[in-house]
Amino acid sequence: MPPSESAKPVAVIGASGALGFGLAMRLARAGVAVAIGSRDPARAQETAARAARALERVAVGSFEAFDNAGAASAADVVILIRNQSETLANLSGALSPGQLLIDATVPLAAAVSGKATRMLGVWQGSAAEQAREMVPEGVRVVAGLHTVSAASLADLENPLEQDVLLCGDSREDKAQAAHLIERIEGLRCVDCGRLEMARIAESLTALLIAVNARYKRHAGIRLTDLDASLWE
Amino acid sequence: MPPSESAKPVAVIGASGALGFGLAMRLARAGVAVAIGSRDPARAQETAARAARALERVAVGSFEAFDNAGAASAADVVILIRNQSETLANLSGALSPGQLLIDATVPLAAAVSGKATRMLGVWQGSAAEQAREMVPEGVRVVAGLHTVSAASLADLENPLEQDVLLCGDSREDKAQAAHLIERIEGLRCVDCGRLEMARIAESLTALLIAVNARYKRHAGIRLTDLDASLWE
Repeated sequence: MPPSESAKPVAVIGASGALGFGLAMRLARAGVAVAIGSRDPARAQETAARAARALERVAVGSFEAFDNAGAASAADVVILIRNQSETLANLSGALSPGQLLIDATVPLAAAVSGKATRMLGVWQGSAAEQAREMVPEGVRVVAGLHTVSAASLADLENPLEQDVLLCGDSREDKAQAAHLIERIEGLRCVDCGRLEMARIAESLTALLIAVNARYKRHAGIRLTDLDASLWE
Repeated sequence: MPPSESAKPVAVIGASGALGFGLAMRLARAGVAVAIGSRDPARAQETAARAARALERVAVGSFEAFDNAGAASAADVVILIRNQSETLANLSGALSPGQLLIDATVPLAAAVSGKATRMLGVWQGSAAEQAREMVPEGVRVVAGLHTVSAASLADLENPLEQDVLLCGDSREDKAQAAHLIERIEGLRCVDCGRLEMARIAESLTALLIAVNARYKRHAGIRLTDLDASLWE
């Protein structure tokens, strides 16, 4: 078993939302055990049952349902989907040194009744840099998955064929995130540099929302001129 | 002749730089007459001669060499490549109502001795929004071409096969820019919304610089799940 994998499940925090649900299904279909986290444990249960039903014809990893803190403490890798600052404040007791946090959150202006095509200014520069400040010491933070649409993930017939832009200060942490995410067929992870580059990667969500509003599609990002496989 | 074309040349302001040179060559190879603009008219002459030599084996549009103001006043469409605020301040007398300015400039922190992977804060929000404030009334502004690398453009064997993200407040202006830019084989223009979205499109240059530094390539952007042709 490669060092980036473990027997523990991967936690998807906010899995009852559309993006988290799609991601949980895709990971499970790839054989990953998923800890479904939701604020309301009953909703987590319902989400786990719904995901299992959607996947009943394929061999899959398992689902377990938790509240968010329960999911986070059960996992080595924690994927944070939404409501970042509120959720992280609540999770602070559940996260522990050595865990990898993959922050997929985006500070859209929609969170304060603004447009979904506009970004909020985050004092630290990006949601990911804010997360790095909020997590307990020793929790590693990589930003990614901002540009993969919920609709594309949830449509299991969609081949995806798009990139995930990873930002982080440690090459090893990014490689660990990449090895997990690339278990989802059709996703290629690209190393986009330090965590501060999440300022740009996060803003691509707003750009894609504008594009999708115009064309009524679910666009993702593909970088050209790169090799098909970018990680050892 | 479609309404978006005219007998006047397209001005490339800053054509002696790598990006401007590549763009001028690609446009000329597509049959577009190009007014090569450079701060120094002698350098514009040299650039025009160099471009003509590089293209001698293909049927091409013509090159004419000017200083930047001369190129801008000779054209209906003016493409601005670099040194935006300085160049626009000098061009203010040369631009006139009805012209279309395609702003490809990017406020990289490198302009003030910072990193090329970091952006400057521009008071108006983006270089393109600053341009809109600086140009004479009646000059229309569309932002685009930030993500196409100089090296890819200059390598005439490179099929490009990438997208140009266009931002602007007028759908017609964006369509005019798209019809011109898509004469370059392998480029597809995508309507990314209003001019304010240039804040995001411009920052992609910094992200691609980080990616290219990591992988020693010349990455561009392709949006997935969109039709091959997006303009009437």
